[in-house]
Amino acid sequence: MPRAMQSVWAGGTYNFGEVKSDDSVPSIEHVRRAAERIGPYVRRTPVFTSNAVNEASGAEVFFKCENLQKAGAFKARGATNAVFSLSDEEALRGVATQSSGNHGAALARAAGLRGIPVTVVMPRNALAIKKKAVAGHGAAIVYCEPTPQARDEALARVAARTKAVVIHPFDDPRVIAGQGTAALELFEEVKDIDAVIAPVGGGGLLSGTALTVRSLRPAARVFGAEPRNFDDAWQSLKSGRIMPSTGKTSIADGLLTTLGKLTFPIIRDHVTGIITVSEESIVDAMRLVWERLKLVIEPSAAVAVAALLAQPDEFQGRRVGIILSGGNVDPDTLPWA
Amino acid sequence: MPRAMQSVWAGGTYNFGEVKSDDSVPSIEHVRRAAERIGPYVRRTPVFTSNAVNEASGAEVFFKCENLQKAGAFKARGATNAVFSLSDEEALRGVATQSSGNHGAALARAAGLRGIPVTVVMPRNALAIKKKAVAGHGAAIVYCEPTPQARDEALARVAARTKAVVIHPFDDPRVIAGQGTAALELFEEVKDIDAVIAPVGGGGLLSGTALTVRSLRPAARVFGAEPRNFDDAWQSLKSGRIMPSTGKTSIADGLLTTLGKLTFPIIRDHVTGIITVSEESIVDAMRLVWERLKLVIEPSAAVAVAALLAQPDEFQGRRVGIILSGGNVDPDTLPWA
Repeated sequence: MPRAMQSVWAGGTYNFGEVKSDDSVPSIEHVRRAAERIGPYVRRTPVFTSNAVNEASGAEVFFKCENLQKAGAFKARGATNAVFSLSDEEALRGVATQSSGNHGAALARAAGLRGIPVTVVMPRNALAIKKKAVAGHGAAIVYCEPTPQARDEALARVAARTKAVVIHPFDDPRVIAGQGTAALELFEEVKDIDAVIAPVGGGGLLSGTALTVRSLRPAARVFGAEPRNFDDAWQSLKSGRIMPSTGKTSIADGLLTTLGKLTFPIIRDHVTGIITVSEESIVDAMRLVWERLKLVIEPSAAVAVAALLAQPDEFQGRRVGIILSGGNVDPDTLPWA
Repeated sequence: MPRAMQSVWAGGTYNFGEVKSDDSVPSIEHVRRAAERIGPYVRRTPVFTSNAVNEASGAEVFFKCENLQKAGAFKARGATNAVFSLSDEEALRGVATQSSGNHGAALARAAGLRGIPVTVVMPRNALAIKKKAVAGHGAAIVYCEPTPQARDEALARVAARTKAVVIHPFDDPRVIAGQGTAALELFEEVKDIDAVIAPVGGGGLLSGTALTVRSLRPAARVFGAEPRNFDDAWQSLKSGRIMPSTGKTSIADGLLTTLGKLTFPIIRDHVTGIITVSEESIVDAMRLVWERLKLVIEPSAAVAVAALLAQPDEFQGRRVGIILSGGNVDPDTLPWA
């Protein structure tokens, strides 16, 4: 059912492709099955509202609090779905991944729940709180240099040595379907949502969210939010192919990843647009959520709140769902300190 | 029904007095009526659990999240109950109080909801975030020097001038009954609680909690938690009369108040004991809740968590409710920064 929709980034229109339900693009049924599979192991996170945010935005905003998720981020959903999707034979070999943080902790936790070995390749400069979280779930950690190439090589060596099943942080249909369960729960709880905003790094959360929203409420708009300093998703959608980052960095450390082979076409075909935001607005949004919702969120989560406030014309008068993606912040390195 | 119970502070026993239900000591019926009265205006806050805290304490801990309450603290309960208990004639005159923070904001909010005038006397050195909250709810603020005497005098002048009904931050049965509704909700949600810990400053929260717990589950133990640096409640219960503070201060700024004429006898008669904690343990507890529950709590709330961890023999193997009393922290003045 192709349909055309206004895009916020180019002022033009583009087509939604057919929703395929082959192995690489999860369907809503995959998302529903993921929800059943992970139900015993993850939290059904609460949905919060805030008068202060409603007043500031002119919208009626519903925060899906994945910062309160197990292991502190939505990543628990995808990782748990992937681990519990494995056959017994695969599970015996264990799992491995590379991750600077939340996915590593989430995979470590899920593997622990299933009682299988897990190895996480991490850059040496990963945040201390994230190293601690991965180690705390009993994973073997292999450190590498903080470059994409070094990470991939280290992970390849681990996989060759252990025969572990590699679970990609986002470019894996089991992971994408798992991430979609956050939006599934949000829509079960809140009716008549007009728009959903999710941060976009590699695109696992955004693609799972988009597939879910598109199926449950085709008229709702879905936006990705990303730092202007690291706007690879915006650039990729504008140019029609996966674009590398421009080399700048952002305090939203969870989003410093480019789109993947699976996530890019899903986002291209199902997302209304990408909203990019300044570093300053990310810090302001993080403080706003802190001061008014009393929630610890990480800068990557604040990016979606900053996007809400950056586009009043888009959201005023609408019912807007925001996925607060995670809360893993080091209390000693707050961006406003 | 007098009964004897082991006290944690003296190793001895003391008697529970009869629960009186005259005007000065609220009964459980007063608490239930308060819950009905304030229901439309305050949040039924969620109850959270944390594996990390359970492991650290050896207890099964249920956090009643009053940091997520309207205006950021349990104070919304008592203030709203007081304001909506007024006759129409009283309400016309408006309300007034003195408060360094949360009660002032809560009273201002409640008065705004009822559409009546409100004046709050605040010390000049109150936290900026708390001044902002009071002003944001439309209260008239009268600043005074930061001494108890100056506060009382300023409030007396306001009352004489405006004829407003003075709502004491804690030594008021309507306020005490309102604060008891947090424990009422906790017990509706969680069964078989063995012990409850609430921070104690002036004693409004602790006395309301104790009356409620004592009525709903007489066998459950109720503890007050306070900074060792400001242990007037401990000293008062030990000596049998209201004791002044020793003059030291604490980062738990919400607890720098001595017990009142109403709260003292309720606490004396219904509380199992007072647990005092160090400044360092308060900061550690605040960080723990931040890192593991992803909740912003103020130091006063962290005092109850520190008390849990300070008395493993008391709480191990028990089901423990903790009232996380508030979340109004200035992000620029964190105690570990």
